[in-house]
Amino acid sequence: MAEEIGVISNKQVILKDYVSGFPKESDMLIKTSTVQLKVAEGSEAVLVKNLYLSCDPSMRGRMKISVGSYAESFKPGQILSGFGVGKVVDSGYANLKKGDLVWGITGWEEYTLIEQPNKLFKIHHTDVPLSYYTGILGMPGITAYSGFYEVCSPKKGESVYISAASGAVGQLVGQFAKLFGCYVVGSAGTKEKNKFGFDEAFNYKEEQDLDVALKRYFPEGIDIYFENVGGKMLDAVLLNMKLHGRIAVCGMISQYNLDKNEGIHNLTQLIFKRVRMQGFLALDYFHAYPKFLDTILPLVRENKIVYTEDIAEGIERGPAALIGIFSGENVGKQLVLVARD
Amino acid sequence: MAEEIGVISNKQVILKDYVSGFPKESDMLIKTSTVQLKVAEGSEAVLVKNLYLSCDPSMRGRMKISVGSYAESFKPGQILSGFGVGKVVDSGYANLKKGDLVWGITGWEEYTLIEQPNKLFKIHHTDVPLSYYTGILGMPGITAYSGFYEVCSPKKGESVYISAASGAVGQLVGQFAKLFGCYVVGSAGTKEKNKFGFDEAFNYKEEQDLDVALKRYFPEGIDIYFENVGGKMLDAVLLNMKLHGRIAVCGMISQYNLDKNEGIHNLTQLIFKRVRMQGFLALDYFHAYPKFLDTILPLVRENKIVYTEDIAEGIERGPAALIGIFSGENVGKQLVLVARD
Repeated sequence: MAEEIGVISNKQVILKDYVSGFPKESDMLIKTSTVQLKVAEGSEAVLVKNLYLSCDPSMRGRMKISVGSYAESFKPGQILSGFGVGKVVDSGYANLKKGDLVWGITGWEEYTLIEQPNKLFKIHHTDVPLSYYTGILGMPGITAYSGFYEVCSPKKGESVYISAASGAVGQLVGQFAKLFGCYVVGSAGTKEKNKFGFDEAFNYKEEQDLDVALKRYFPEGIDIYFENVGGKMLDAVLLNMKLHGRIAVCGMISQYNLDKNEGIHNLTQLIFKRVRMQGFLALDYFHAYPKFLDTILPLVRENKIVYTEDIAEGIERGPAALIGIFSGENVGKQLVLVARD
Repeated sequence: MAEEIGVISNKQVILKDYVSGFPKESDMLIKTSTVQLKVAEGSEAVLVKNLYLSCDPSMRGRMKISVGSYAESFKPGQILSGFGVGKVVDSGYANLKKGDLVWGITGWEEYTLIEQPNKLFKIHHTDVPLSYYTGILGMPGITAYSGFYEVCSPKKGESVYISAASGAVGQLVGQFAKLFGCYVVGSAGTKEKNKFGFDEAFNYKEEQDLDVALKRYFPEGIDIYFENVGGKMLDAVLLNMKLHGRIAVCGMISQYNLDKNEGIHNLTQLIFKRVRMQGFLALDYFHAYPKFLDTILPLVRENKIVYTEDIAEGIERGPAALIGIFSGENVGKQLVLVARD
């Protein structure tokens, strides 16, 4: 009977309450709701069946009441949201029709009614894995691309250091830097070494002294630091920057579970070494997405870029997958497979 | 007899030992040495009679063993050095002759033998006070000018905040910003208010909560922060930056007397607001000094810029004048008059 009027069940990931400290699976719950598979008459909304959901570090900030952030906090008792890939089930929006594939902000649930479909990106190229639109062909891809080429102002031969280098963004930045002709060292929280063709890689958890570790890999200093972690790593990097170095501040994942961020003590090095430190977000570069795709799709098709995903199957595994990225358990881009089509 | 062979007494300011914490007058001593008023045959050195010595915040860093700084530490038992204005007494250097006026790095003493005279700037314009070449027409002037116009990327109508706003650099930056058409607020450690024609000024020592103070003067946020102090002020400013704001990091005087810099906790705001934070030094802009003078001299001659000096008379008062700038006792550029000509 429910089938006949197009109402079906819809599993959702709900935030129980604001989170302090390290998030746990039990901070979220899976709730089964129902959804009508039709957009209301006259509405411009789009109903999407979610195929892949992206686990992004920035989601942590939205689990607390956040000050000054670009993204609103999640509401306790309501579903999480984030980037995902979906298929249009019904549409009141002229530019999208049933069966179209899209990526953009969606709910952490099986089906989502998207009220602002103009913010979705329509997927035109399906000869590459659809899941890539949560990563290398989506927000993390634009982040890595704009962060490296626009924010870092790289020069051939420069020394590039990337933290969280096996994450969605880090692995790409390192490969862009290698393709560009830079010396590239990445660090991550696992022993996976040099998977992405960097010159060197190390596990920061095995280092007693980050300053010593950085001096080992960069005896003459760092020209470009692609900052994903913050905290003690940033302080150590500041001591090792070269004259006129650049720091692209993409994220500070080591800080997101703290009630108060760690203090950074070495900012006077910005003066001594005349370093530029620039915060940025992919959303400021979304206008350049078509140009980005033109550049990146051939590299993907020709396997000139290694791209690794860590896929959790089933929306029920979403909470575990999400919290895993904060302990560095993922190797490669962490995402959740909700449905294959 | 001494007079006949041109040897005369030379008072010098000596660093007793490396300084930790707040410097005291007793960390320095006045020693009377002698100097021969001739450059050795065949030498390319220049002997300069020092007229004015500049008290600069960066000198504090040189009183300790400093890590990664652009300037070498002073040596215990040896004389201090810094920027000054002097008159050439004897010269083995082709481009300078007896009687020429110069500014540049010199010793904290009455007479200095300068071994690298190519680093001195020859003074051509003497219709303005000579002492100005320690400030508005010297290193602080280039610092303010390049810092504001090059590093801050200002736009007309933007909101500019300057800390240490009555110091040598701060007072100039604020006036450049006003002339440029910005809204300007400065803070300092005295009650001297609005001396330099800023829109608003406040005494940071009278504020319980710097975040609240900044929100009072910048209800819509800060586009440009000219950073001279660091520490808690920087942390409060980070919470008040506007989207795509810029922070020119000129100095962090509040940190120079600490054994360990205070921790800065709000750097994630760089990401949220996509802020650019750029360390810089005047010496990277010294090549543009002639162009700078062409711009600034007319403003000085036409009194379009207010420039305030705080002059201590006599080299014996040098140590007290120098330590005064760290407690914010000076109003205007602090310098030492060693000799009138």
